[in-house]
Amino acid sequence: MIYLDNAATTYPKPETVYDEVMRAMKEYGANPGRGSHAMAIEGARVIYETRENLAKLFNIDDPMRVILTFNATDSLNQGIKGVLNPGDHVITTTMEHNSVLRPIKELEKYGIENTIVHSNSDGSINAEKLEKAIRINTKLIVTTHVSNLSGTILPIENIGNMCKRRNVLYMLDASQSAGVLDIDMKKYNIDLLAAPGHKGLLGPQGTGILIINCDDEIKHLKEGGTGSESSNIYQPDFYPDKLEAGTHNLPGIAGLNEGVKYILNKGTKSIYSHEKKLLEEFIKGIRNISKIKIYGPEDIEQRCGVVSVNLESVDSSELAFMLDTEYGIAVRPGLHCAPLAHKTIGTENIGAVRFSVGPFNEMTDIKAAVNALKEIAENN
Amino acid sequence: MIYLDNAATTYPKPETVYDEVMRAMKEYGANPGRGSHAMAIEGARVIYETRENLAKLFNIDDPMRVILTFNATDSLNQGIKGVLNPGDHVITTTMEHNSVLRPIKELEKYGIENTIVHSNSDGSINAEKLEKAIRINTKLIVTTHVSNLSGTILPIENIGNMCKRRNVLYMLDASQSAGVLDIDMKKYNIDLLAAPGHKGLLGPQGTGILIINCDDEIKHLKEGGTGSESSNIYQPDFYPDKLEAGTHNLPGIAGLNEGVKYILNKGTKSIYSHEKKLLEEFIKGIRNISKIKIYGPEDIEQRCGVVSVNLESVDSSELAFMLDTEYGIAVRPGLHCAPLAHKTIGTENIGAVRFSVGPFNEMTDIKAAVNALKEIAENN
Repeated sequence: MIYLDNAATTYPKPETVYDEVMRAMKEYGANPGRGSHAMAIEGARVIYETRENLAKLFNIDDPMRVILTFNATDSLNQGIKGVLNPGDHVITTTMEHNSVLRPIKELEKYGIENTIVHSNSDGSINAEKLEKAIRINTKLIVTTHVSNLSGTILPIENIGNMCKRRNVLYMLDASQSAGVLDIDMKKYNIDLLAAPGHKGLLGPQGTGILIINCDDEIKHLKEGGTGSESSNIYQPDFYPDKLEAGTHNLPGIAGLNEGVKYILNKGTKSIYSHEKKLLEEFIKGIRNISKIKIYGPEDIEQRCGVVSVNLESVDSSELAFMLDTEYGIAVRPGLHCAPLAHKTIGTENIGAVRFSVGPFNEMTDIKAAVNALKEIAENN
Repeated sequence: MIYLDNAATTYPKPETVYDEVMRAMKEYGANPGRGSHAMAIEGARVIYETRENLAKLFNIDDPMRVILTFNATDSLNQGIKGVLNPGDHVITTTMEHNSVLRPIKELEKYGIENTIVHSNSDGSINAEKLEKAIRINTKLIVTTHVSNLSGTILPIENIGNMCKRRNVLYMLDASQSAGVLDIDMKKYNIDLLAAPGHKGLLGPQGTGILIINCDDEIKHLKEGGTGSESSNIYQPDFYPDKLEAGTHNLPGIAGLNEGVKYILNKGTKSIYSHEKKLLEEFIKGIRNISKIKIYGPEDIEQRCGVVSVNLESVDSSELAFMLDTEYGIAVRPGLHCAPLAHKTIGTENIGAVRFSVGPFNEMTDIKAAVNALKEIAENN
């Protein structure tokens, strides 16, 4: 099977990820932070090391501000709802995933206003356009780093600088970029970063991160056992415990730690460069198939990870089905949980077939996909 | 190592649990419900099978009302905050874990009142005492099934019947009982059941369940991608998607499914009977050590899974440390995230050392623990 659905979750993971998940379950499968015996301590140590490695990858000083969540949606809800209060205004773009749009739309019920700024038809948007939407009560701007539909890279450094200048918090949804593109939270003025652990960070599903690079109050959305301040019937007020109630996903986090170590070792520059070469070859290979429409920016420098296409004569679900059953190629068809993004690029009625690469794809995978598309285009 | 910290998380798990976690990661490690290719479909199938097995174990008809969460705290927050609205009143007991107490205390900020009914010093409480706390605006009663501190079993069938008669919702925190005691949600009139996946249900950490056996409105606490109604920028209004935003912990759920299958196959009756024998032997063995104080009910029929003790002359942390380092016995000392329970049993200043058994403990583990306690008592 040729797996080109890495934007949904990366597959495979580095071998060390599988090994550590198993080691966490079999060798230190206790409850970290809830006991003082050797196994519980080893679990707590691995969790702390994961925070340290993530702090290093995204360049923040304090590992205790790396909040370990259960997926990016969890992180986005915690970040967005944690900072916004009734009367506040939040700005986002039409290229966002439902994990950003749905919480923001939900908050309308609680008197939190929003502006969803229109991106261009290639998925791009600039800081100036976002700045124009700022009102007196704007507290937060949330944008994706890379569109999960068009692969468009947003100018996050510009947006971060603008937000800093205008005294607005900037939250980055790094779901499609963490582990692939360089993200320096301090340098780029990113106040909050949300990402899944199981995509570019190469960890298992059931993991996510919320990294905090600001001193603003973040309300907790859940309360429960933290293994700390046990005699307090209110949630502790320090990070990370404040935002981490209940038992951690220890095997998942242990695997995530290995994923992050793999990335730190390899370097995002090398991972990105590998993936860019693959995408470039893919686009080059299918550009001349006349029936194929490619979405997203023309310039390869402005895109990352994902290429969505449609074939004139074949429905997107049917195309994906043929790729799966006839060619053994796994992709994602249809709507990609980003309804306004589909409207922006003009695919709200037809969906699109998304090809997405990961660090373990090879040029042969791309060639197989190009050949499959050529054959299907010829025969349909 | 002799593991007697199963109330924190069970260890080990059945071999099939480890195997399936690995199979999920290596053989169908795609994103279930976010693609139509073979791997994504296999993931979705396993998730559905998990719901079916859990529906069977707790006797509800519709597997789609089994909500897969990330831990019991997640389930409890979702259930408690999902049903309560400003002006409502909720009743609970002093024996609850912080995962029940902290959300309920937090809700005071939003005009939701509570009554925390005093349990007896052995951790017990009866339905009549809870009933007396009912007010005109009481919407919900939440109780644990088994105290994580004293091991006391609560009369959930009586409480469920009383709640039904009084038209109050009953939510059960089955964190210490799911997979061990028989819980028939229909027969016992349990409206909502919360449990971790990684304790008695024998799954991996990073899993939890919320089972819904009522038709009352449950507000979602998170919104995000669900893989369903992709073109809707509001959260879908049907179960389970309404309460399951973002990528599932697929390897965890796959492991949980195997844990639940193990339980269904073995039967809770046989698991409980095994654990009861171990506890009985443990209590019998330490009862005559004069320096030892045993907490919880005298009657073995009224307790499950957990025995907490203190040794007159040794601090609880020190006792646990000696057990770990000198005898290789893992237990949990100190405060157990249940502050009012410690007050109830009289250990708020000294904590307690908790011994908790799982299905894979053997009589030799118990004998070793008894001997260790005897030796320590003699020498200290």
